[in-house]
Amino acid sequence: MNETIETILNHRSVRKFKDTPVTDEQLSAILSAAQQASTSSYMMAYSIIGVTDEKKKAQLAEITGQGYVKDNGHLMIFCADLYRHTLHATSEQYEDMLANLENSEHFLVSAIDAALAAQNAAIAAESMGLGICYIGSIRNQLDKVDEILGLPKHVLPLFGMVLGEPDHQPDQKPRLPKEAIYFENEYKRDHKDELGAFDETIAAYYQSRQTNTRNDSWTDQMLRRFTKPMRMDVTSIVKKKGFNKQ
Amino acid sequence: MNETIETILNHRSVRKFKDTPVTDEQLSAILSAAQQASTSSYMMAYSIIGVTDEKKKAQLAEITGQGYVKDNGHLMIFCADLYRHTLHATSEQYEDMLANLENSEHFLVSAIDAALAAQNAAIAAESMGLGICYIGSIRNQLDKVDEILGLPKHVLPLFGMVLGEPDHQPDQKPRLPKEAIYFENEYKRDHKDELGAFDETIAAYYQSRQTNTRNDSWTDQMLRRFTKPMRMDVTSIVKKKGFNKQ
Repeated sequence: MNETIETILNHRSVRKFKDTPVTDEQLSAILSAAQQASTSSYMMAYSIIGVTDEKKKAQLAEITGQGYVKDNGHLMIFCADLYRHTLHATSEQYEDMLANLENSEHFLVSAIDAALAAQNAAIAAESMGLGICYIGSIRNQLDKVDEILGLPKHVLPLFGMVLGEPDHQPDQKPRLPKEAIYFENEYKRDHKDELGAFDETIAAYYQSRQTNTRNDSWTDQMLRRFTKPMRMDVTSIVKKKGFNKQ
Repeated sequence: MNETIETILNHRSVRKFKDTPVTDEQLSAILSAAQQASTSSYMMAYSIIGVTDEKKKAQLAEITGQGYVKDNGHLMIFCADLYRHTLHATSEQYEDMLANLENSEHFLVSAIDAALAAQNAAIAAESMGLGICYIGSIRNQLDKVDEILGLPKHVLPLFGMVLGEPDHQPDQKPRLPKEAIYFENEYKRDHKDELGAFDETIAAYYQSRQTNTRNDSWTDQMLRRFTKPMRMDVTSIVKKKGFNKQ
């Protein structure tokens, strides 16, 4: 196994950072790595907002319910961005672009472009000994995040990432068995048994981990998650921002 | 600069592979890497279909218009997957899950989960000297791809990836200047100048590259892309598959 794969397999979400700030050199390498990710038809349909302003960080910590967002890690918000593609268009061309720009195809393109760039950033950071955590909970109040960052139409915040020198080493959470996520040639509809086996793994994990031991299984956790409606306003905010329409 | 960052920065899309097949050991490392990516609230909302059946590969090559899809590389299709989350639900619980499962929030979650896993797979492959290329053009005929792979409701193909021993070394395509994708604290709406500068870079690149020289700029390319409606049926197919509704 090489160093890169070791780095990837050693991933855990880090939520507590030392005071040592991320250096300009580190940030520059992280951004270069992000930019070198593949991008659909050369669209590079994402932007990254680094948040250093203390007031904005505090607001984002409140929205996300994650206190550490305002602490000493470097906070970045990854956005879907189809705005810059319109910047050089005449008003007539702009009108012609909208049907395409605002369809689900380009919503997917921009979300995937942003995620590929983010994961390159994450691996680059981790390869330098930094820890990272994705912050999906900015979508608790997407309209407020949008306002805080001053985003124009056709730019949509998707998720955040905090990074810094790790100040703890959390356990790694088990993953689904390979047989439940990788199929050859055809999807295997009946993989209840694989999930049942995983439920046993995860029950043992929750019992044995260093902190927050509990009785739980993966399928129960997912049942709870999905039977409690959440972030139902994302649909309308996404459309208001000019994505995923019609 | 460390080895991992070197690997990341050395990325180029490889579309021609040697006959040496990807080994089981390589594939296993690639899938482990994919699985170790971050996942929103532990949902692991993606699946990967490895396509080895020659007939299916030929069908996918035709759909994508990319002949090399049927050649000697290992082909994988990454899917958004919220199906397995319903497998252990009673029919009443299933009904209760749908509002949440089928909203835009969970469409985003599953697309992002799939992309993070895919990018880990890509980096792991490249770290072992393999080349990769993402295949977005499976979305040319999403319903056919869906049928070929036998996907149930709540599983949606998003993009493919081909990997193998590289048989060419394409040029690296320039990226937007950092100032056009990274902003501090607030989005910079006026970055026309940065794009203008990039247009000069890209015009020089298209003139100087080894094959396919042409006169073009990035903003022109994007104007052409967005003024010609494409994949307008993705919206309805996505909804039919039980994603991104209401």
